[in-house]
Amino acid sequence: IQSKLPGVSTTIFSVMSKLATEYNAINLSQGFPDYPCDPKLVELVNKAMKDGFNQYAPMPGSPLLQQNIAEKVEKLYNVKYNPSTEITVTAGGTQAIFTALATIINSGDEVIIFEPAYDSYAPTIRLLGGLVKTYELAPPNYSIDWDMVKKLFTANTRMIILNSPQNPTGSILSENDMNALIKLINGTDILILSDEVYEHLIYDEQKHQSVMLYQELRERSFIVASFGKLLHATGWKLGYCLAPEKLTKEFRKVHQFNVFSVNSAMQQAIAEYIKEPANYTEIGTFFQEKRDYFRGLLAESRFKLLPCNGSYFQCASYSDISDEKDTDFSMRLIKEFGVATIPVSAFYQKATDHKIIRFCFAKEKSTLALAAEKLKNV
Amino acid sequence: IQSKLPGVSTTIFSVMSKLATEYNAINLSQGFPDYPCDPKLVELVNKAMKDGFNQYAPMPGSPLLQQNIAEKVEKLYNVKYNPSTEITVTAGGTQAIFTALATIINSGDEVIIFEPAYDSYAPTIRLLGGLVKTYELAPPNYSIDWDMVKKLFTANTRMIILNSPQNPTGSILSENDMNALIKLINGTDILILSDEVYEHLIYDEQKHQSVMLYQELRERSFIVASFGKLLHATGWKLGYCLAPEKLTKEFRKVHQFNVFSVNSAMQQAIAEYIKEPANYTEIGTFFQEKRDYFRGLLAESRFKLLPCNGSYFQCASYSDISDEKDTDFSMRLIKEFGVATIPVSAFYQKATDHKIIRFCFAKEKSTLALAAEKLKNV
Ligand SMILES: CSCCC(=O)C(=O)O
Ligand SMILES: CSCCC(=O)C(=O)O
Repeated sequence: IQSKLPGVSTTIFSVMSKLATEYNAINLSQGFPDYPCDPKLVELVNKAMKDGFNQYAPMPGSPLLQQNIAEKVEKLYNVKYNPSTEITVTAGGTQAIFTALATIINSGDEVIIFEPAYDSYAPTIRLLGGLVKTYELAPPNYSIDWDMVKKLFTANTRMIILNSPQNPTGSILSENDMNALIKLINGTDILILSDEVYEHLIYDEQKHQSVMLYQELRERSFIVASFGKLLHATGWKLGYCLAPEKLTKEFRKVHQFNVFSVNSAMQQAIAEYIKEPANYTEIGTFFQEKRDYFRGLLAESRFKLLPCNGSYFQCASYSDISDEKDTDFSMRLIKEFGVATIPVSAFYQKATDHKIIRFCFAKEKSTLALAAEKLKNV
Repeated sequence: IQSKLPGVSTTIFSVMSKLATEYNAINLSQGFPDYPCDPKLVELVNKAMKDGFNQYAPMPGSPLLQQNIAEKVEKLYNVKYNPSTEITVTAGGTQAIFTALATIINSGDEVIIFEPAYDSYAPTIRLLGGLVKTYELAPPNYSIDWDMVKKLFTANTRMIILNSPQNPTGSILSENDMNALIKLINGTDILILSDEVYEHLIYDEQKHQSVMLYQELRERSFIVASFGKLLHATGWKLGYCLAPEKLTKEFRKVHQFNVFSVNSAMQQAIAEYIKEPANYTEIGTFFQEKRDYFRGLLAESRFKLLPCNGSYFQCASYSDISDEKDTDFSMRLIKEFGVATIPVSAFYQKATDHKIIRFCFAKEKSTLALAAEKLKNV
């Protein structure tokens, strides 16, 4: 058969996690914790299953979870989303992204993305018949010149994908960015897909600039969030999409035929768990400590650390160490030094090699210490 | 925004389950059990979570589950699928269908479906830029004249969707059907999507005609299966897709960007559970008893029962009772008689009303008895 995604192979996250196992390397590649999620959360799932939450949840989500998401969002951002008409629970953030794109893209529609970018955006857009327009961000700050973004606009521009805090760079959008964006799209009907799965992982007292804080953006945005990232349970595959009613209505038409509904016991458990704000307000501090610890350790290495304002990823340049391609260098890190990372070139469509690799620091301190010991020898 | 699915509204299964709750009616509409799944299964999930299966499962599925699916398939059908290259675990049967269609359909491709049909097929095909070619099955037997199917073939025919046992009619494909189909597609490169989510629910000593039993079909087929239906746990949203390596390779390219991977603790639990053949070989008898019980009860009503050879659905004609449209009649059943069903017209794209409704009999005997009492008054 003819491939619809001819250039695409297995996602880098699978490849690297598999290699980590094969070479018995410390896995700082794929973004997931190596410590357990809260046992209370596990207990809540167990209780929900015993209470009989084992049949189809309602298609858009369990009402209690929708309600408690709305309350959490209001507490954090002072913005109201209607639980029954504007919140849809999905099988993870990646799926919410896929469904939003499938809801919007018609053949020939253009979608603007900022690279380096999470590796699902571009192939998903293309799979759905869209065209990818790429704005390339430059290290070390990966900041955006919005006048240059405007140059990508055409009559076919249908959507812009934002991702703050950004994977893989850990960069974040500022208030100035948001205001520039508002000016840019004013008078157009360009939509926004805002991937905010790292919304809670933002450091140094900075404030997460959710698109929902800006009425002009909110009214045209799909916002994607992840419980996997928030609750240290990436394997549960639970996330959600916030969008105004007219967008949600179309989103759900696709959602219902893509997955229909999402794990009912886990929805119930998460609904109970997030009632307690302490269960989500402390995660920023928790990860900031890990970031600082890991940066401190690597300061003694020959890696040059890039800024990390958010997410659980730390990027580093190895240009002082080697001029190998980042794919070769990261292979060598696994094989010779026993540490798995992600080469940042994997987040670009074109061959783009800045000699930068990404570490995931959502790990036990002992894991980070052990990895740093090895990395100091590089 | 312009809708990509303009004619589509909320799926009938959601609508009816919601009305059932609102009117406090007995819910024989959406296909799910009203009794608990095996507590052993719940215990296995609990154990898997405690054992730390809370982070991303491998993208194509947990290796143990892939392995045990392969063993189950071989025991049941004496056919081998390679666990690592031909079996992909999905977030339910519906998602496997969506992903398979997204893998194959290019703009203008035609897909043949048999109506009445599960309501995701047609809109999913259209969403992806395909054209739906419909073969209409006639009650009461819903059998297929393959010469007439052949008339639907064009140069653009890309795929045929099979569904045996069929939802909603409970009809099944015979060996003759399979052989006719083999002749039909011989020399074409038409693919098959075989929705076999009710593979175990087949009655009266009949044998499930899986496409995998026929080498000429197997080599061009995506086969979709559901653990929700098998394990009385529809809310877990777990299924899988079997396909030869060259098809699986493309399927996974889409899967990895649609959902990436599937609930890891539940995969682990199911892997353990299906090691024991008794946990899946007895379900046919279990549901046949329910079918016979329910049919016995309804024999005393004015409904005319259609044949039911498989699935957990029983269709019935009410033409002796009323000449209302089936949507009106089923509304009246909920409101006046307190029983929720599915009007079979919901399984057609065009207005097609045969005065038939669908009952789900995956319910406690006491539920079926109570429903039958009410239905006898109609
Ligand atoms: C869905 S896999 C990985 C997503 C992620 O967290 C990453 O970028 O590593
Ligand atoms: C995904 S909802 C319902 C599927 C099903 O079992 C039905 O036909 O009722």
